[in-house]
Amino acid sequence: MEPWRTAISTSDEKNIFIRGYSITSLMTQSTFTDTIFLLHHSRLPSANERRLFDAMLIGVSDHGPAAPSAAAARMVVSGNRRSMEAAIAAGVLAIGDAHGGAGYECMQMIAEGLELARRESLSVRDAARRVAADAKLKHRRLPGMGHRIHTEDPRTRILFNMAQQYRVAGDGIAFISALEDAAGELIRPLPVNIDGAMAAVLMDLGFSPPIAKLIFIIGRVAGLTAQVMEETMRENPMHIRIPVVYDGPPPRENT
Amino acid sequence: MEPWRTAISTSDEKNIFIRGYSITSLMTQSTFTDTIFLLHHSRLPSANERRLFDAMLIGVSDHGPAAPSAAAARMVVSGNRRSMEAAIAAGVLAIGDAHGGAGYECMQMIAEGLELARRESLSVRDAARRVAADAKLKHRRLPGMGHRIHTEDPRTRILFNMAQQYRVAGDGIAFISALEDAAGELIRPLPVNIDGAMAAVLMDLGFSPPIAKLIFIIGRVAGLTAQVMEETMRENPMHIRIPVVYDGPPPRENT
Amino acid sequence: MEPWRTAISTSDEKNIFIRGYSITSLMTQSTFTDTIFLLHHSRLPSANERRLFDAMLIGVSDHGPAAPSAAAARMVVSGNRRSMEAAIAAGVLAIGDAHGGAGYECMQMIAEGLELARRESLSVRDAARRVAADAKLKHRRLPGMGHRIHTEDPRTRILFNMAQQYRVAGDGIAFISALEDAAGELIRPLPVNIDGAMAAVLMDLGFSPPIAKLIFIIGRVAGLTAQVMEETMRENPMHIRIPVVYDGPPPRENT
Amino acid sequence: MEPWRTAISTSDEKNIFIRGYSITSLMTQSTFTDTIFLLHHSRLPSANERRLFDAMLIGVSDHGPAAPSAAAARMVVSGNRRSMEAAIAAGVLAIGDAHGGAGYECMQMIAEGLELARRESLSVRDAARRVAADAKLKHRRLPGMGHRIHTEDPRTRILFNMAQQYRVAGDGIAFISALEDAAGELIRPLPVNIDGAMAAVLMDLGFSPPIAKLIFIIGRVAGLTAQVMEETMRENPMHIRIPVVYDGPPPRENT
Repeated sequence: MEPWRTAISTSDEKNIFIRGYSITSLMTQSTFTDTIFLLHHSRLPSANERRLFDAMLIGVSDHGPAAPSAAAARMVVSGNRRSMEAAIAAGVLAIGDAHGGAGYECMQMIAEGLELARRESLSVRDAARRVAADAKLKHRRLPGMGHRIHTEDPRTRILFNMAQQYRVAGDGIAFISALEDAAGELIRPLPVNIDGAMAAVLMDLGFSPPIAKLIFIIGRVAGLTAQVMEETMRENPMHIRIPVVYDGPPPRENT
Repeated sequence: MEPWRTAISTSDEKNIFIRGYSITSLMTQSTFTDTIFLLHHSRLPSANERRLFDAMLIGVSDHGPAAPSAAAARMVVSGNRRSMEAAIAAGVLAIGDAHGGAGYECMQMIAEGLELARRESLSVRDAARRVAADAKLKHRRLPGMGHRIHTEDPRTRILFNMAQQYRVAGDGIAFISALEDAAGELIRPLPVNIDGAMAAVLMDLGFSPPIAKLIFIIGRVAGLTAQVMEETMRENPMHIRIPVVYDGPPPRENT
Repeated sequence: MEPWRTAISTSDEKNIFIRGYSITSLMTQSTFTDTIFLLHHSRLPSANERRLFDAMLIGVSDHGPAAPSAAAARMVVSGNRRSMEAAIAAGVLAIGDAHGGAGYECMQMIAEGLELARRESLSVRDAARRVAADAKLKHRRLPGMGHRIHTEDPRTRILFNMAQQYRVAGDGIAFISALEDAAGELIRPLPVNIDGAMAAVLMDLGFSPPIAKLIFIIGRVAGLTAQVMEETMRENPMHIRIPVVYDGPPPRENT
Repeated sequence: MEPWRTAISTSDEKNIFIRGYSITSLMTQSTFTDTIFLLHHSRLPSANERRLFDAMLIGVSDHGPAAPSAAAARMVVSGNRRSMEAAIAAGVLAIGDAHGGAGYECMQMIAEGLELARRESLSVRDAARRVAADAKLKHRRLPGMGHRIHTEDPRTRILFNMAQQYRVAGDGIAFISALEDAAGELIRPLPVNIDGAMAAVLMDLGFSPPIAKLIFIIGRVAGLTAQVMEETMRENPMHIRIPVVYDGPPPRENT
């Protein structure tokens, strides 16, 4: 059998190295957020990059038990009391296109929008307007924009302010801000949500689309572990009862 | 690297064998239930064993969307629309000690009860009485007995009747029936539920404890796939809204 | 909160109904395979439909420990000895586009091919030829065709023979057989594999694409439970050692 | 239906609060590690507590593709290319008693050891000696001690040094150090590994046992996301081929 290949970490009897740094030097001189950046980008972040990563990870870390990921995790605890890893894994499985996955699609949309601007020599604003008009025409959702609960996502402004202040803000933030304006004019108010804000910042930091989903998962796992502990400690097994209405076939004979 | 070992199946360019039987002969001459039995017991079942396995697999195949496994699966669909395998896996993860796992523990209890009878030359009835008295004393639940919804589990009687009729019924069913009587007298009415009934029948068929959980999982996956399809086809993403009460710290300053 | 809706099953204190049939009548008069059909199609199968479903479920039930689903499940056992449901769920998670998911895509391809025939008044053979030519031009894989191990999948012929004999075979089987001929001529020999054979038969039985993946999952779970039991019973924890080559950055200083 | 209860987070149209702190103030003034501590302990950590948490999270963040969690995750990618959450969840599922779960059991062992010291007025050293002697007698493994690869775990000394320097070290570290001495004398050299070191530090920080497993999961998810990205980006589907030896029944007839 061929061996597996990895460029992430290696170890011998006395050492473990992550991307070439000894794990003991990371433990004494770096933060967990530095290590997350290192694991995915193969270099340590600057102070500003670290702060932005911290802000993003915190921003997605928890949103209460009603989010599909937390609800699925707590449901699993409800039937399976002895396996915290099962409940946390179920929570991770609920992170998809409709919950926590918009950042991925939004990064792809921004990349395509900026490519459109380049290809057709449009300004970023005009490219964003074209994307909004196209979405309207095709009745397509704009990923990373709008929110069920928040009319204005409090996390977006904070992230964009930090990116401006740290001089990280570039075409990613410019594009999605222009898209917000265009959508407000052509479709309806669709404020940039945390997924969209993260997508724009991660573009401006030089990452490629899947990172948005990975950051969401890493951050949210911290909330899921807390949700799972709370359900385990405070609630009885099977305590969650969701009412069900049956609208299928009436009783019939099996003959 | 050492190779992995298996005694379950093997294949070459033209054939696949399961426990020595060619898969094509199984496909034409056997049922899926025969194959489930074969995979776990390394021989094909008799007609009566097949009927009991069918009855058990059907008996646990679905219990509506409010069961923790179905609820977790539907929650996952709610956030993650494109990955049916993720939702089904989350459903499997909810099958644990409090939901679907009682059969496993019940088989262990029956095995210990029958061992007690043997060791101390007690009748099965007397051993069951000792187990019930001991559970009362230690405030311990009797696995496989009692049910949240059903005062009398309709599946239990059917399974026991089939086992009698097919002359499979032995000490397993005798023990749990005696335990039901003793619990009713010493504790409170605790009718044998489907997990307990399956445990007793599987003991009398010569299986060891983990099989009860495996049968539950195989049977319930059939219901979970149907639940996941229904949620996908009939409901919007994020449609499930569970009310939440917050009882944690009030707003405070981070300084 | 709004209740959940379901048309699958319902229960009261004394009864459980699946699609309107009492579970006790199913337990005594039907097979597990009947119930799988019923759960997904809301009616009981004919004898021939049952036999085809049995053959498909058996055909995908196991393919040894090296299949990604079985390997992932056994890996999980290797680290986590006490949670069979975790290992089985991990196995289910490996069932995707490259393993077990081809039936889904193949049903979509057949549906599009038959739609093309209808729209452009082509024969099924000519439509299949167009699809093969198009795949060649765009360097696209044909889902459900070709196999890493089997030059001729032994399960395909059996399934097609059964479908002919039971007079179920229709445009689905006609299309994929024509596609096999056309691919052999235009691309290279690409025999219909079990995923493709199932896809064609399920089309001819009147099902829609996701069912192919669901059948694969239900069938394979039976193999996964056996694989998980075998790993638990026969092997030590952490016994699986896959050799790894590190090709990342050399040791460096974190300063 | 009763609402769900939570003391973790709450939100309204304009705000999200975690344990009472507005998420925007956390995003600008705290680190992700602070937030992990806050989510689980309901207060922000001191600078020294934060550094210890960073060191622990980094210390468990990755150990290469051969660890059961990374191997299971990469196996899932191998079959299922489009669902990173499925692969990461499978990795989490491999974190159990034999991989990453020893910290949990070790915290329980330390708690019992210290309780023994209190109850019988023993010194911590004498209690540790009793625990080692008892393990020897009963042929029981000491959780958190010994390692397959490392003769001396490089992470242990670093963590203990930090705990001494920050004046956090207490009875937890004293007990496990004494246990290492006693085991070396009575059994064989069993150096404290990272799980044991974390367990001791978390005891001295005032946490209860499950936290050790949660920290392992949160830290390791950062490595798993990197492993999953690497497998997705660098390898073909199904590229992992594990050799298998079949030792089951020879071909036989199904008649």
